[in-house]
Amino acid sequence: MDPSAGGGNASEGEEPPLTEKRIDWPAEAERIEGRLELLGGISESDGGLDRPPFTRSLRRAMEETSRWMEEAGLLPAVDSFGNLLGRAPQEGRKPALLIGSHLDTVPNGGRFDGALGILLGIAAAEILLPRARELPFAVDVLAFQEEEGARFRSGCLGSRAFLGLLESRDWALTDSRGLSLQEARDSFATDGWPRVEPYSREGIFGYLEAHIEQGPQLEALGLPLGLVAGIVGQERLLFSFHGEGGHAGCVPMASRRDALGAAAEFAIFLEEMARQQPGAVATVGELHCRPGAVNVIPKQVDLSVDLRHPKDEVLDRLSHRLQERAREIGKRRKIQVSSRRTDRLPAIGSDRGWRERLASTVGAIQGKAPQLWSGAGHDAGILGRFAPMVMLFLRCRRGISHDPAEFVSPPDIACALQAMVGFVESFLP
Amino acid sequence: MDPSAGGGNASEGEEPPLTEKRIDWPAEAERIEGRLELLGGISESDGGLDRPPFTRSLRRAMEETSRWMEEAGLLPAVDSFGNLLGRAPQEGRKPALLIGSHLDTVPNGGRFDGALGILLGIAAAEILLPRARELPFAVDVLAFQEEEGARFRSGCLGSRAFLGLLESRDWALTDSRGLSLQEARDSFATDGWPRVEPYSREGIFGYLEAHIEQGPQLEALGLPLGLVAGIVGQERLLFSFHGEGGHAGCVPMASRRDALGAAAEFAIFLEEMARQQPGAVATVGELHCRPGAVNVIPKQVDLSVDLRHPKDEVLDRLSHRLQERAREIGKRRKIQVSSRRTDRLPAIGSDRGWRERLASTVGAIQGKAPQLWSGAGHDAGILGRFAPMVMLFLRCRRGISHDPAEFVSPPDIACALQAMVGFVESFLP
Repeated sequence: MDPSAGGGNASEGEEPPLTEKRIDWPAEAERIEGRLELLGGISESDGGLDRPPFTRSLRRAMEETSRWMEEAGLLPAVDSFGNLLGRAPQEGRKPALLIGSHLDTVPNGGRFDGALGILLGIAAAEILLPRARELPFAVDVLAFQEEEGARFRSGCLGSRAFLGLLESRDWALTDSRGLSLQEARDSFATDGWPRVEPYSREGIFGYLEAHIEQGPQLEALGLPLGLVAGIVGQERLLFSFHGEGGHAGCVPMASRRDALGAAAEFAIFLEEMARQQPGAVATVGELHCRPGAVNVIPKQVDLSVDLRHPKDEVLDRLSHRLQERAREIGKRRKIQVSSRRTDRLPAIGSDRGWRERLASTVGAIQGKAPQLWSGAGHDAGILGRFAPMVMLFLRCRRGISHDPAEFVSPPDIACALQAMVGFVESFLP
Repeated sequence: MDPSAGGGNASEGEEPPLTEKRIDWPAEAERIEGRLELLGGISESDGGLDRPPFTRSLRRAMEETSRWMEEAGLLPAVDSFGNLLGRAPQEGRKPALLIGSHLDTVPNGGRFDGALGILLGIAAAEILLPRARELPFAVDVLAFQEEEGARFRSGCLGSRAFLGLLESRDWALTDSRGLSLQEARDSFATDGWPRVEPYSREGIFGYLEAHIEQGPQLEALGLPLGLVAGIVGQERLLFSFHGEGGHAGCVPMASRRDALGAAAEFAIFLEEMARQQPGAVATVGELHCRPGAVNVIPKQVDLSVDLRHPKDEVLDRLSHRLQERAREIGKRRKIQVSSRRTDRLPAIGSDRGWRERLASTVGAIQGKAPQLWSGAGHDAGILGRFAPMVMLFLRCRRGISHDPAEFVSPPDIACALQAMVGFVESFLP
């Protein structure tokens, strides 16, 4: 890391780029690391990190984050959903460059996913504050909740609410105890914070998010940072294979209509199909045998499919092939097959111009600026529908995330902060 | 059905064989059918038939059965386990031909499995009573409990207890609520019945059991009855496939160590292996993905294997090949595989001489006397270790059992009763 290698383009006579000032990037990274450690201890349960939305632990994490926002010179507030905002103090109204990520975690999650992007945003906003008047936008920091979808099984609810996109069916989503999103939100106390109205689309200059890669590609390249070319399209399906049950000892193999045999064949095909399609990933994450007893032939197997690709038309084709193959297997094995699509998110590219700006500052820091597709969904995918969006990925140790072993190194965090500050500075006149 | 076609060989001057007397077989079958209907309504829960051992419903079923035993001229009693016996009144001591089956059912079971064999035994004993003195044995009827193993996950506990074969580890088996077999037995009231001591092995002349086939073979042959050549050997195994989890969108296909992919490949191999080995059946009845979420690559898959074959050496070979293939799949996919045997029951043949006697009476009734291996375990498999054993299978509609759709027709029940009476008569001097 070379602190002198800034991406700024400040004009003559003005202050030098912040990246050329004596900012102690390793010390900044250390401070972020300390905050990550603190947030990583705020969990709903004792074993592992578990911070679902609209819980006491999430409220406590908001309180800590709010304090750090204030220390950075930002004005904390909440929106009607319960997202936390750190707003730049401004006299005249300028549209806002939003830097954000999410505070909620999956059960038994890692401490970098989400929280790191918010803390990088706060640190960047603090460093940039002296140049606030010169920037064509305000720098606001956002801490969303329920990005993961672990509680209400639908992702990015916080960012969708922030943009006023939730519909009544979203508010009716229920958690495992039957509590609706509406009820959970209504019982979540946000007293003590001023309330802000949803931002108008004109009020949003754009969106920047830094996030742990959650995959092994940057590690394989030996680089701390990567640019996100976009967020892949995603389709989720549920397949049911209906065969015939029976006693495991009494029904000859030739008479069987074993639902698991058909499901296993389908899972193998899915894996092979995704392997042969560059850029595609496909996963069977859940599989249930019914009745599910050691000595009973499975009568029914239900399984989930998660299918992703950067191109929507390829995604369509893969989804079609899967359904076709399931029918073919069903016909051959006399198994009734049904499927339904439970989710579909189109692919969304990051803003080309903004990506070039970020590539220039990343390139100055680490020599190369590789572009990656994000296989995971992010709040950036929602914001990017209405405003320029760009994302920065940080190298993830062994590609592991959603796990206590999730790790990003402090030097990589320092690089990311430097890149984000450089990116914002590129907008200085 | 031809009532004149008896298998008896009574000597001259004696009474004619009972099968040649004016026994109204259809009426007998109708009476059995009525009793089956009554027992089929005695259930622990309202929806479907569920009669676990050591419950109020099982006690009520014993009370009804005990009443029918008395009506048949038998003397009801219980043993120390809680099995119900209907003993022939005898002055001198003769060893007993035991005719039996079990009163317990699986959850959501059928009304023929178990109960039918007991009711056929009671009806046969009643018909045979006039010839009791001439027979070289007493005819006792047995109603075991916990044959299915649905409560304590170990089958034939009643018949093993009857022979004094239960060990302390069996008594320590627990049900889903943590209650041990010992505790369940001790809290089960059998007051009102005289207690009998376990039969000595010399006191057992042999064992006859009639049972629903639980498979489609007799239906395919178009015949009401079949002889059981023996009960197949059985092995149960648990396999665990340990791979690496990860985000379904972020880990490229080539980097994955998906435990479900390995498990699916294994399940396909198992199915194909059993198809190619005549007489073998193999089933994956349970399969669990961990963590089991739509967007998480399965880190671990646990599955059960149930493997059966009439020859123990073939069973050994199949089990060995399965384990070998699992290791090979694991090695190729970088998945750690472990397996352990959870159960093993050797194959047991029915008594050749007794089978010939039964074949002769069955052949007289329906022209042919096909021999089938029983893929299911039965109390006969326990009794057969110590005394001559023979079993009669009744045609099972569509091969379905352990299900409310389980069905045996009254004419087939009449044939079975006639065959059992004829079999016993073949021992008349």
